[in-house]
Parts: sequence; C-alpha cells; structure tokens
Amino acid sequence: MISPKKYARAAKRLPKGFKTVNEFFNYVYHDEEMIWMGQNTNHLHEENDIMYSMLDSVKNKDYCKYPPPEGFPELKDLILKDLDLTSGHDIFVSAGGTESLYLCMNDILESTDNVITCDPGYLIIDNFASRFADHVTSIPIYNEECGYKMTPELVRKNMDENTKLVSLIDPLNPLGTCYTKEEIKEFADMAIDNDLYLLHDITYRDFAREHHLAAKYAPEHTITTYSFSKIYGMAGLRIGAFISTPEIVTSAKSIVINDLGTNVVAQMGALAALKSKSTWLDRIRDTTRGNQKIIKKAVDNVEGAFLPVYPSDGNMFVIDLYETGVEPIDVAEFLLERKIFAREGNYTSKLFGHRYLRVSFSIPRAGVEKFAVDFQDAIETLRPK
Amino acid sequence: MISPKKYARAAKRLPKGFKTVNEFFNYVYHDEEMIWMGQNTNHLHEENDIMYSMLDSVKNKDYCKYPPPEGFPELKDLILKDLDLTSGHDIFVSAGGTESLYLCMNDILESTDNVITCDPGYLIIDNFASRFADHVTSIPIYNEECGYKMTPELVRKNMDENTKLVSLIDPLNPLGTCYTKEEIKEFADMAIDNDLYLLHDITYRDFAREHHLAAKYAPEHTITTYSFSKIYGMAGLRIGAFISTPEIVTSAKSIVINDLGTNVVAQMGALAALKSKSTWLDRIRDTTRGNQKIIKKAVDNVEGAFLPVYPSDGNMFVIDLYETGVEPIDVAEFLLERKIFAREGNYTSKLFGHRYLRVSFSIPRAGVEKFAVDFQDAIETLRPK
Ligand SMILES: Cc1ncc(COP(=O)(O)O)c(C=O)c1O
Ligand SMILES: Cc1ncc(COP(=O)(O)O)c(C=O)c1O
Repeated sequence: MISPKKYARAAKRLPKGFKTVNEFFNYVYHDEEMIWMGQNTNHLHEENDIMYSMLDSVKNKDYCKYPPPEGFPELKDLILKDLDLTSGHDIFVSAGGTESLYLCMNDILESTDNVITCDPGYLIIDNFASRFADHVTSIPIYNEECGYKMTPELVRKNMDENTKLVSLIDPLNPLGTCYTKEEIKEFADMAIDNDLYLLHDITYRDFAREHHLAAKYAPEHTITTYSFSKIYGMAGLRIGAFISTPEIVTSAKSIVINDLGTNVVAQMGALAALKSKSTWLDRIRDTTRGNQKIIKKAVDNVEGAFLPVYPSDGNMFVIDLYETGVEPIDVAEFLLERKIFAREGNYTSKLFGHRYLRVSFSIPRAGVEKFAVDFQDAIETLRPK
Repeated sequence: MISPKKYARAAKRLPKGFKTVNEFFNYVYHDEEMIWMGQNTNHLHEENDIMYSMLDSVKNKDYCKYPPPEGFPELKDLILKDLDLTSGHDIFVSAGGTESLYLCMNDILESTDNVITCDPGYLIIDNFASRFADHVTSIPIYNEECGYKMTPELVRKNMDENTKLVSLIDPLNPLGTCYTKEEIKEFADMAIDNDLYLLHDITYRDFAREHHLAAKYAPEHTITTYSFSKIYGMAGLRIGAFISTPEIVTSAKSIVINDLGTNVVAQMGALAALKSKSTWLDRIRDTTRGNQKIIKKAVDNVEGAFLPVYPSDGNMFVIDLYETGVEPIDVAEFLLERKIFAREGNYTSKLFGHRYLRVSFSIPRAGVEKFAVDFQDAIETLRPK
C-alpha cells in the first residue's frame, strides 16, 4: 500500500493480564461496576428523548434500510443551527468525529504539506495527518508560559511555507484548555493571511464556559469537526460530522468511505439530542463542573500532584504526578483494581505522557467521590519511600 | 490531496424533482408505504431477537461508552464460526462491509498494482480500487458465454504481472450469479500460483443455494468481506467485517479509520443475529426464493424482457429490458410513482446499465405481487409504439 502511510502506534504498556488493547477494552466495557473516567464519555444522561427516539427507531425497524448517504437533511440542518453556521456552510454526517477528521485530512492534505498539532493532544489527529502529509510538527505545549495550549505565536514560530493545516482542538483533550475570542480571531487571520486551513475540532465545545468558532471569522479556511460522543453521551453510537464550505464538503464527498451512510439509530438519537438539548444541557454542565471541584480538592491534598489546568473547559483534565515519583500507568492499574477506569498520559502525549493521569468527570458524583478517595490512596500506596 | 485519488462518479440521472442523491434517498426513506426493492436490503425479519437485543442495549445505555476498537471478541468469534474459519484466521469488525472493503484495498494495493473486477458489479469496489491502484480492469461479463459471471479463464486473459487483486463478488450484485466449488478452487489455485489476492465479497452468501469460501482453499491469498446488511436485515446499522490471515488483519489495523470502534447497538444486534440465525434463516430464504418466481412469471409475460440469471443466488437479479425499447430509468420513475423503489442498471454497471432494471425481493410477498402487476403496466405504458 502506498498512502495513507502506515503509522506505528506508540508502544503502550497494557494493564497486567491483558494481551491486546481490544481485550483490555472488552474487559472494562463489560464490567458494569466500572467507574468510567477513562474515555471522556458522558454518563450523566437520564432516560430521556435520546433514548426514547432510538428505541422507537429500533421498534420501527428503520434499520432495515440504508439511510441517505450524507446524513438525514433534518439532522444536517439542526447541527448547522446548533452552531449558528446556517449560511455559506455545508455539512457531512459521518461515523464519529473520527471519520470526519480522516476524510478532511485525506481531502485537504497533499504529500508535500506540513501540519501543525500540539502535544499533549488527540493523537489520532497526528496519526491521520502523518498518513497524508509530508510532516507533522507537534508543538510541545505542556507548560505555563503558553497556558497549556497552542498560541498564535507558537504556530507562527513553527510554520513554514508548506504548512497547510493547523489543528485546533478546542477545548483540548486532555488538558481542558480553550481559546478566547481574541485567540480564535488571531488564528483565523493567520489562516487567511497564509492561506492555510484551521481544523477546528470542537468535540468538547458544550462543556466550555465560553466558546468561539473559527468558522465565523475565517469561513473559507476552516473545517469544523463535530461529535455526538461527549455532551450528547452517544460515544458508542459513532456519529459526528464536519462542516466547511460547500466546495470542501463536495470535494471530500468524492473520497467518501461509507457511501451507504451513517447508522440510522445513531442519527435518530442525534436528532432527538439536538431537539432536547436545552432541557438537559445545564444540568450536565453543572454536575461536570461540580465534579471537577471534588477532584481538585483531592489533588490539593496530595503532595507533588497538581492540576495544570483548572477549571477545565472540557469534561476531563490531567493530574500531574511527576513530583510524586509515581508512574501514571501504575496509578491507572491501581485504580482499575478498585473499579475505576482512568487513563495514563501516553494515550494523549508522546512527550509528557509519563507525567500525568487523565481523568474525565462527566459521570455521576458518587463515582467521582470514590475516585477522590482512591486516588489519594493510590499515590500514598505507590509513592517511593 | 494525493492518494486515495478522487473518483468521478458516473453521472446518473436522478428521478424528476430531486436535486441530489441525498434528497432522493431521504424522500424514499421516509415514505412508509414505499416498497423497498431498490437496495438489496432485507425486510423479512419479524420482531425477533435481533430487535430485542438492540432494544436492551439502548435501554442499558451501552451507547455511552466506546466499544473495544476491533469489535467485541464474542462477535468476532461468532462470525468466524459462522464461516467455519476458526483457525489461522483473524477478523476485524467495521462500519459495514463497505469500510472493510476500503481498509483492505488501502492495505493491500500499491500505486503500481492492477485490480480485476467485473461489470456489472458493485461499483464502489472499482471506486476504492482506483483510489489506491494503478489500474482497474473491469471485465464485461454481461453475456451467456461466461454465464454472467467472472470465470477463471476471463481472469487469466485479463491478468498481467502487476495484477495484485481479483474481486469476486459472490453471489454477484446485481446479477445473482454464484461460483461453484470447482470455480472457487480454480480461482484459489490461480491466486496462489500468481501470488495475488482474492477479495471474496460474500455479502449475499446466505441467500445462495450453495456457497464455497475461497479462504478454505487459499487462506493466505484471500480476504473475505462480510456484511450484516442483507440476510441479517441490518443495513441501516452499518456493520460488517473482514477476515484474513493474522498478518493481513494486523497490517490493516495500522491504517484503521474508526479507531474508537463500531456502533455498539449494531454489534449487539449482530451478536443476536448470529445466535438466532438458525431460527429464521430458512423462512427468509424460502420467501425470497418464492418471490423470485412471482417476478419471473411477470417478466415472462412481457415481450422483449428477460431474466439473464434465474434463479438468482442473491436477494436480487436484473430484468433485461433492452428489446422492449424502454429505458430502465423510465421504468424506475414509473414504479416510484406507484410507490415501488427499484434501481436502474447504471448503479451497478458502466457498460450495460442502459439494458436492465435491478430488483431485490427479500420483502413481504404482497409487495412483490404489486411489483409484478406494476412492472407489466410500466412496460406496456412506456413501450415505444
Ligand atoms: C479531540 C477529539 N476529537 C475527536 C474525538 C473522536 O470523537 P468521535 O467519538 O466522535 O469519533 C475525540 C474522542 O475522544 C477527541 O478527544
Ligand atoms: C457486493 C456488495 N458488497 C458490499 C456491500 C456493502 O455492504 P454494507 O452495507 O455491509 O456496507 C454491498 C451493498 O449493497 C454489496 O452489494
């Protein structure tokens, strides 16, 4: 095979007793008691319209037919309305934000292009970029000076004449940092001036206290990727979308993969999710923000541990453990035995993964309270004497 | 973007009143009265374990979590067992057979390779192949001499030293032809002798009266693609798989797209589908075969129309209309007004699409009976005087 290029995954140590990632995930997935803080998923939805609408869809046997290949028009419209990007934009519905990221990078990037991402960050973006581009520059941002996020200045410093795409994950997985209006405007101007694209991954947008779309300021130079996995609590349904100019969306359609469309049950859930959003959004945000406070208190109790970013504008953040002398993977393993699933740093960083544990907190409060206790236990137990 | 290459879709005339394929599909999808003979989907399942298991999965909010990235191990095992390919094979679960086709071709093909397909055939295979390979030779097989299918002889004639992959759709969409044990063995030997791969697309396998897996005879040279869209009636859930040697599956994993896995509700449905298969399979086959007979009678009544392949080993076949002087697209439009969705030939052929209408018949008998009447009406109404 030629391109997309193969990509060597960073070798990761698996928790003891597991031979493959798939086995490990299958194990945690099926443990009903597991407290789910390892995937930034959202477990705060009650029995609600999203669920009812999917149950109706299944009962109605919608699933026997293929859906329209680009997504139900009503769903496309509602996503655009959710973002207030109704004119001058087109949209494509895909199997998760992930597939959208892939399609967009495949469409935009040529083999002489360079891409800018950041570390820590969401590594599949680097992976996809490296399949299509010449080079991926992953800017280290794990420090206070840049505020634990990409800055226009850092991008400018790392740009060259072949830079075609800058990935802005906003809020940023794993840190929970988010861009201000001024920063977004500056990135937008930079994209226009240098004729490059912003890949604005807004997967965690609705957890943020304030959020600004690059597509408002540089519509011709922005691709926005959207996900139903987080605020909507629909990760296992694999549904997302990307939004850009009609030209880019049309171009990406010519390299589409799932030409028979996206899961209809997921689309029916997504429709209900958007229609009912105003009824549950505040509750989920409040709980998520309250949960952060509980963790913050626990971390403050632990000598050598700290939260680089607090509060987080996502449903996750990282706990820096470096000064405790304890390895994040060991903490993850310790917690797993206590039925808490959290993620050591190297899932989201090549450079700083040894420093931190990532935890997500859009789960019922009781789980977070258990974490607060067990985390302190973990460090005290594992701390080198 | 560089590779995968863009692929110009054959310009297709849309039924009157529709601006885009997506609009058209959305229209037919939402018309509850529409008789669904246009997509080879299966509408013969009753309320059954597949449905119950998906309802349970939704009620249980399984969908909040990400599933294991390669598919639930139990599901992987059951598919391999269904094919009796338990040793020496590995499997990957994907969003439809479509995604599996894409991943496999992306993995196997290099830019100097040639691929052999057939026309009529399933055009997305040609499309994917053309993105990764140098050249796709689509062998015309719409004639009696070759029995309306690929033959080892035809492949040998069209092969050159760069031929890397031969696509065997078996049973063949749209014709419903199927390979004998001897033919499969001959293809297998050819693959071994010439060190090329067979892409054995067995999407319609369970409709066939007899079916043989190339993977049994050339395990190291076969990739088998599997779908839950047809016999299982789960098209809208987008779930499928591919099966090959552990080496090939491992290699394809390194270029995976949906690294967060395949829809969990679909996987739960698929598990139930495999477990319950023996309870519904014969009924669905019988109805499908009976439905063919009804259509055959109607076609026999129409001067100039004939069935190139009968009986079909799939859940579809083509009705050749050439001698009637009526265009397939006009018949499709006529039927659409009578609430019957069927497909003109150019969805499955670049060379012979003007000759035939494709109809699928895994639907309740009443719909097929209506088709039998309306089809005769259509030709008599549209036939040039
Ligand atoms: C930044 C970011 N983008 C995209 C995704 C993938 O989302 P989806 O589940 O919609 O594929 C994730 C998932 O964790 C993410 O963190
Ligand atoms: C020959 C063939 N292969 C693959 C597919 C795609 O199946 P899936 O729905 O599993 O993507 C189809 C669908 O019509 C088909 O006809």
